[in-house]
Amino acid sequence: MNNPHFEQYFATMKEKVEVQLPNVVDQLSAPSKLKESMLYSLTAGGKRLRPLLIFATLKAFQKNEEIGIGAACAVEMIHTYSLIHDDLPSMDNDDLRRGKPTNHKVFGEAVAILAGDALLTNSFQMITQHKHPDVSAEMKLKLVTELAIAAGTEGMVGGQIADLEGENQQLSLEELEYIHLHKTGALLQFCVKAGAILSNASECQVYQLEEFSKHIGLAFQIQDDILDIEGTEEKLGKPIGSDTTNEKTTYPALLGMTKAKEKLTYHIDQALHALYEANIDHDMLEQLCLYIANREN
Amino acid sequence: MNNPHFEQYFATMKEKVEVQLPNVVDQLSAPSKLKESMLYSLTAGGKRLRPLLIFATLKAFQKNEEIGIGAACAVEMIHTYSLIHDDLPSMDNDDLRRGKPTNHKVFGEAVAILAGDALLTNSFQMITQHKHPDVSAEMKLKLVTELAIAAGTEGMVGGQIADLEGENQQLSLEELEYIHLHKTGALLQFCVKAGAILSNASECQVYQLEEFSKHIGLAFQIQDDILDIEGTEEKLGKPIGSDTTNEKTTYPALLGMTKAKEKLTYHIDQALHALYEANIDHDMLEQLCLYIANREN
Repeated sequence: MNNPHFEQYFATMKEKVEVQLPNVVDQLSAPSKLKESMLYSLTAGGKRLRPLLIFATLKAFQKNEEIGIGAACAVEMIHTYSLIHDDLPSMDNDDLRRGKPTNHKVFGEAVAILAGDALLTNSFQMITQHKHPDVSAEMKLKLVTELAIAAGTEGMVGGQIADLEGENQQLSLEELEYIHLHKTGALLQFCVKAGAILSNASECQVYQLEEFSKHIGLAFQIQDDILDIEGTEEKLGKPIGSDTTNEKTTYPALLGMTKAKEKLTYHIDQALHALYEANIDHDMLEQLCLYIANREN
Repeated sequence: MNNPHFEQYFATMKEKVEVQLPNVVDQLSAPSKLKESMLYSLTAGGKRLRPLLIFATLKAFQKNEEIGIGAACAVEMIHTYSLIHDDLPSMDNDDLRRGKPTNHKVFGEAVAILAGDALLTNSFQMITQHKHPDVSAEMKLKLVTELAIAAGTEGMVGGQIADLEGENQQLSLEELEYIHLHKTGALLQFCVKAGAILSNASECQVYQLEEFSKHIGLAFQIQDDILDIEGTEEKLGKPIGSDTTNEKTTYPALLGMTKAKEKLTYHIDQALHALYEANIDHDMLEQLCLYIANREN
């Protein structure tokens, strides 16, 4: 992202969520170790891409981004819980995340599992308890439903299981896409949908935005796979080559690097095409889409 | 429970939930191993005490129990997830639950963690997607909020962390009560509150029912501790004496068996007192309260 105008906008919105997230946990009455463990991962940085997608979608409909702050915190809490559980010894068994020891390395497995459970559980209350005159009870109910679908059995967790089952196996492109559309894509799709729900988008706009978010979800993952080979440990905050170590099927492994990069370009093109069709003020969403394709971490 | 009228009522309501729960999972589109793991624990039997508390509260307000079926499934899914995660090697490391191998023993740790995550996530959608003309959007929002509070950081998960931290330590009665009011009590309290929300109970009635449910939560745990010493493996479906093995502080260990039993009687008396003050049709709730005190598993 090389345009100072966009950079400033995203920095401001990122700041908004990063100020809010620790407050959410600080206000809870609970044993300090649980709160410390939740905060450790919640404040460990990261791109905050999911909240930014919500805000950028609201901006596309010329809505006040304030109405999305509840959903933004909720989705970041769910993303954080999924990273904590993913890193566990019985899952990916990762020691480093964003350049820091993973949650279970610091707090132990039991606390890490429970901190994840707590972040997941309390995320729903971020949506229901967020107060804004433009956010109706019906909107909140839709958000809770969509978030549960995106994060649960039919979404992220389903993708995670498929990912585990696919380890040490040669997957087809179809199987690989199933994994990523669910494991990573579902939550990204939720973000754009949440923005659309809060903006009372038309059915046609929701359809185009669903197409947009499906393609950026796949693009995100292809770039992830590329970075695991061509990235640097310094910028990624974790060792490169971990997909090979974990014997995971990746786009470059399946298609070769050249075709994987073509696939990335294809999904970005498709995403932008759908976005332009939605007939909204698309600048910020367009920037996020290009950022996803060109990011270095 | 020796009265055939009550027995019949609870058997019918239990059946309602037990028919509904597998349907919820069957209808989901997800990898079969995830659904199998979720169903394994969800259909493993159990008392279904939490759904029964919701139904009995609705009956006390002469409401149609149908309006509580969404919340009943939700709370049973959350209870089930909590058992799966509690049994994990890094937590209580239990091999048996209700006479059957625990979830991770059958499906492995990774799948067990994810099945728990999925049950927790999808539980919220049970509430928002339940359709009944007498259940308003506002009621559903309150239920989601209360369930997240009861199951999350300030409720069940907070209690579970306190329980872990209290292992191998001599706890005070106050610390022991904190653990149980949160780990077990919070979800039981939610059930009674859910019935009250769905019945438009008065503030005064909600207060009395909160007192009622707080005391039955503690009574439930004291009886649990007593059964771990005086129960039989056959009826419990798990080895007795596990609290001693896990070096957990229990009511009998802290107070002696006689005083622990007096404490049980005290909480049952207090619960019934609050219940009678609520001025509702209390028969079924009274029966559940007595059942909690006298149960053998």
